[in-house]
Amino acid sequence: MKCLYFDAALTFIEDYPQPRREKGEALIRIQYGAICNTDKEIIKGYKGFQGILGHEFVGIVEEAEDSTYIGKRVVGEINLGCGECERCRQGYSNHCKNRRVLGITDKDGAFAQYITLPLANLHLVPDDVADLEAVFAEPLAAALEITNQCHIKPTHKVAIVGNGKLGQLIGQVLSLTGCDLTILGKNDKSLLLFKNKARVQLIAQVDYESYFDVVVEATGNQAGLSYAQKIVKPMGKVVLKSTYHDQALLNPTLWVVKEITLVGSRCGPMDAALRLLDKKLVSMEGLIGGVYTLEEYQAAFNDQSSLKSVFKIVE
Amino acid sequence: MKCLYFDAALTFIEDYPQPRREKGEALIRIQYGAICNTDKEIIKGYKGFQGILGHEFVGIVEEAEDSTYIGKRVVGEINLGCGECERCRQGYSNHCKNRRVLGITDKDGAFAQYITLPLANLHLVPDDVADLEAVFAEPLAAALEITNQCHIKPTHKVAIVGNGKLGQLIGQVLSLTGCDLTILGKNDKSLLLFKNKARVQLIAQVDYESYFDVVVEATGNQAGLSYAQKIVKPMGKVVLKSTYHDQALLNPTLWVVKEITLVGSRCGPMDAALRLLDKKLVSMEGLIGGVYTLEEYQAAFNDQSSLKSVFKIVE
Repeated sequence: MKCLYFDAALTFIEDYPQPRREKGEALIRIQYGAICNTDKEIIKGYKGFQGILGHEFVGIVEEAEDSTYIGKRVVGEINLGCGECERCRQGYSNHCKNRRVLGITDKDGAFAQYITLPLANLHLVPDDVADLEAVFAEPLAAALEITNQCHIKPTHKVAIVGNGKLGQLIGQVLSLTGCDLTILGKNDKSLLLFKNKARVQLIAQVDYESYFDVVVEATGNQAGLSYAQKIVKPMGKVVLKSTYHDQALLNPTLWVVKEITLVGSRCGPMDAALRLLDKKLVSMEGLIGGVYTLEEYQAAFNDQSSLKSVFKIVE
Repeated sequence: MKCLYFDAALTFIEDYPQPRREKGEALIRIQYGAICNTDKEIIKGYKGFQGILGHEFVGIVEEAEDSTYIGKRVVGEINLGCGECERCRQGYSNHCKNRRVLGITDKDGAFAQYITLPLANLHLVPDDVADLEAVFAEPLAAALEITNQCHIKPTHKVAIVGNGKLGQLIGQVLSLTGCDLTILGKNDKSLLLFKNKARVQLIAQVDYESYFDVVVEATGNQAGLSYAQKIVKPMGKVVLKSTYHDQALLNPTLWVVKEITLVGSRCGPMDAALRLLDKKLVSMEGLIGGVYTLEEYQAAFNDQSSLKSVFKIVE
């Protein structure tokens, strides 16, 4: 099968062996796969991954022990727990110490014609959700992890720092709470996507010291946290969504004196993401730019014109 | 009056003018004042304070508009809000941006024969609480801020990293929850104080990776947080109590991937601290070492033999 394989460099392979189902797994034919910032970090060396890249996808089940899945359109949770440790037994396999992660750790990913995933990881895509919406289920679930972890009140003043792809999805999710939402970014163009959802402002143009009840840090770099801790209120909350390779020089004493809480936030509830898409409560309009074939991977990864590049893999 | 005055250096002054009550304030004759780590940090330059040092005290009200206070034994909250800003109006004067802080910021402190404090800051000391217990009300309240902010369950595995004065008080408070408590320190001697309250261990002797539901960081230095984030479970909580001048090189991406929450924690509920002392649910035995006069301040600050040095100020 065709795939994008990473081993120090990214390569298009025409005749990679099709994966074989392990017990409990389904074989899935990929329709679309989307490029995430994590993919770009992996190409820079993050995680030391070797294998097929890609973890945001929508596909169709071709083989499964449970025949009711066959022919169904699915998205999938990316963490594969060992199934035996305390965390897996408590239902937190996404925090299993020995977990494999689709396209990130020890498991071939979705920039390929086929993947395998355990049936327990799959979610059926409702008919009214288009492929190019469903492909956002994974990052949209990561945005929903914020409201899964934190009580965002309709009376809260909330800021999102960073207006990239994840910031956009977080903005859509948090605007549903009715909170007083401000998006702070450096990029005028993509800030415009938020119009009607939130107040949008360039970071340099405002002084919001100690203003927000909740600040979501989604810049993708280490400068974001220092800014977030400045604009959050005493006793407020900073939600951390950024992952990056570098360490940051920080002053935890400021968090003690201001009594702020920092919440690390990663993968979230995919079923809730699909419900929001199905009910048209979030819109992916304007988020997808170029649609590429796997062969065009270099153009796809270099595409700066849109927020999200997508591979159309089904032929 | 006699006092210890700090202005680049600490000096004993014999004839400092007695403070005058502002409107709403009481004049308090100090019985005992205790030395806190923050006092030692101030002497090193922290906060750039100039004035009389000291914020842990017990004293007797000599003058007040409300005559029912006169002659009463009191301890006092150390933050003086402006009374007018949004935070003060909401009851959070300890987070007022323009607050003064007894012996720390713009307000003469308690290493003196007299201080003034607003009546609203005062708490009456129950008769069964001795002076040398009451003098711990302020740091004991800071320990109680942990259970004020976080739900510590009796089923939780909890670690306290750091076995200094604050670590000791936190250990006493958290052991009351019935949680499975471990104290991790570098100092064999003061670890012994915890016997019967908690499991006590030297940091170097155990490997607790991802073991605890809640970890309290009370080391007083920047190494503590990196250790705490290692031994806390995924989705667990790290409570930060340490304040120190230096910045720390940290990796927030680890908090995101592990989805841990960091909670900054400072001053706490003094009335609850007095209730615990009154009910003999905590014991200050073994915490106080030397008792000194103000004139003996150099010996008091240099005393390494005990966890807490105290000034007996009343004559």
